Amino acid sequence: MRKPIIGVMGPGDAATESETQLAYHLGQLIAQQGWVLLTGGRNCGVMDAANRGAQQANGLTIGILPDADDRNLSAAVDLAIVTGMGNARNIINVLSSQVVIACGMGSGTASEVSLALKVGKPVILLGCETVSQRFFQQLAPERVTVTETPTAAIEQVHRWLKTGHSS
Amino acid sequence: MRKPIIGVMGPGDAATESETQLAYHLGQLIAQQGWVLLTGGRNCGVMDAANRGAQQANGLTIGILPDADDRNLSAAVDLAIVTGMGNARNIINVLSSQVVIACGMGSGTASEVSLALKVGKPVILLGCETVSQRFFQQLAPERVTVTETPTAAIEQVHRWLKTGHSS
Amino acid sequence: MRKPIIGVMGPGDAATESETQLAYHLGQLIAQQGWVLLTGGRNCGVMDAANRGAQQANGLTIGILPDADDRNLSAAVDLAIVTGMGNARNIINVLSSQVVIACGMGSGTASEVSLALKVGKPVILLGCETVSQRFFQQLAPERVTVTETPTAAIEQVHRWLKTGHSS
Amino acid sequence: MRKPIIGVMGPGDAATESETQLAYHLGQLIAQQGWVLLTGGRNCGVMDAANRGAQQANGLTIGILPDADDRNLSAAVDLAIVTGMGNARNIINVLSSQVVIACGMGSGTASEVSLALKVGKPVILLGCETVSQRFFQQLAPERVTVTETPTAAIEQVHRWLKTGHSS
Repeated sequence: MRKPIIGVMGPGDAATESETQLAYHLGQLIAQQGWVLLTGGRNCGVMDAANRGAQQANGLTIGILPDADDRNLSAAVDLAIVTGMGNARNIINVLSSQVVIACGMGSGTASEVSLALKVGKPVILLGCETVSQRFFQQLAPERVTVTETPTAAIEQVHRWLKTGHSS
Repeated sequence: MRKPIIGVMGPGDAATESETQLAYHLGQLIAQQGWVLLTGGRNCGVMDAANRGAQQANGLTIGILPDADDRNLSAAVDLAIVTGMGNARNIINVLSSQVVIACGMGSGTASEVSLALKVGKPVILLGCETVSQRFFQQLAPERVTVTETPTAAIEQVHRWLKTGHSS
Repeated sequence: MRKPIIGVMGPGDAATESETQLAYHLGQLIAQQGWVLLTGGRNCGVMDAANRGAQQANGLTIGILPDADDRNLSAAVDLAIVTGMGNARNIINVLSSQVVIACGMGSGTASEVSLALKVGKPVILLGCETVSQRFFQQLAPERVTVTETPTAAIEQVHRWLKTGHSS
Repeated sequence: MRKPIIGVMGPGDAATESETQLAYHLGQLIAQQGWVLLTGGRNCGVMDAANRGAQQANGLTIGILPDADDRNLSAAVDLAIVTGMGNARNIINVLSSQVVIACGMGSGTASEVSLALKVGKPVILLGCETVSQRFFQQLAPERVTVTETPTAAIEQVHRWLKTGHSS
């Protein structure tokens, strides 16, 4: 049985301290469930924090880099997938994840959530403002869940993995 | 001097009649300005309608196809760019356009608008609901304009092309 | 009826003068047949020379850029498709062309010829050394033709377009 | 310290029994060195055989799928990266590998070897005919090595990893 891969997306350089704290905790919890963490791989913001959390809890981490080399890779990524294709790699992030968790919002994250919904992946919004929640829930009400804490997000991932709608 | 390329994005099979009518008119007006029309190229919805409008007005049309062949190409596309890379082609749509016009909203269109904002392109929303307007204007207030008619959208494109923020 | 799109691939900065002369002539002839020229779009080597030849003969030229902006675009490209995906764009070059002509050889061109054969496109080798000819003819004997002059290459394109194996 | 990722490329459905035997052995040896195996991920030919070999030796395996879902995934892949971008994913295979080993030759494999050389990765040819050897050695003599056995290929990987030219 392959381990589930859970994607955590969110702002990079523009991430707030609150968002990186949520992401770090989320990374820890994902690792503790025995799941694999997948992020955009760069050494900043939500990506880096989630990877550090997962690494602290001895999890396995995959980073899907937009660059053509690993110079900007988070030090907490175990496996670097180097795409060299810039933002075109966003679709890989969501296609490779069974469930996508958005931790904070920005234009890059919005593209990943939109693509996830386009290809039928369930999305969990954590720490996102009301306007983001409304927008994405209107796009795909049956596949977008809003949560307030990393623990609640993890419970929701368990639900999605059980239904099998996430494969 | 190269001609400006204007991207028109919007729902495919799920497009409403109102959206395809707006898109057809938009395609006509884009062609009449001497601009090149760029769409996702498929023979349905907003893409197809915009291409038919542009062709009726003797414009030049480019379609960036997600498929690996041209079987689902709009008959009104002059130049088919065949990518074979599915939704990863959405970034090409926006990087190749000087201005992106979203005519209606769905998850695919939302990914294109998000990517456009991510890479610094101006976006015009036409026929989009309030919740979409609020979401994208919050993401990038200085680069998102809401318009009600194709004519107003064209006037806004002229403004963006003059500022040079669209190159 | 859409115009045929003919792809011309070849070395960039490493192109020899002989290769750029062949490419310039090829561009002229492609334009004179009423075909559209497609290249990798950059302002160097075979790409740039083919575009200049086509432009001199009033042809239409498309450039599929690896970069995320058009700073390195050949001045003789009419329509810039900006991919931002580096060498991943090579597959677009061949999928969008009815016939691929390699004018000289290098590792980038070799990847394009290989991908063309992989997806079933006919390939014409012009000005390539014996070892390249042998390699590609062994990979796909029925779809690789070796020619010595731009005129012979154009005659071969006409043959491929007639058989319809190139669509 | 991240573990080295070694890419094994080769024919899929067209692989010979000799090629899949070499690939299986190669997969075993890669796992035994403590390296991660990366392939194109599909359940056929060289990809599948290398993954089965690595799995038998308790190695970690990554598959970079061309498809938009994991239906054709090799059962011996631990981590599926789902790209949905067809042959455009070939560049990811080589950018993500420190060293690329081609086990047999075909048009897809030729594109991967060519791209590897284009982006500066070392390539080892195993079980490839003379005409392939000559072609790629002419393209990049300093980065292409010909080996006759999986054991010799592994020794050559060790050499490349030591020089650091493979990062």
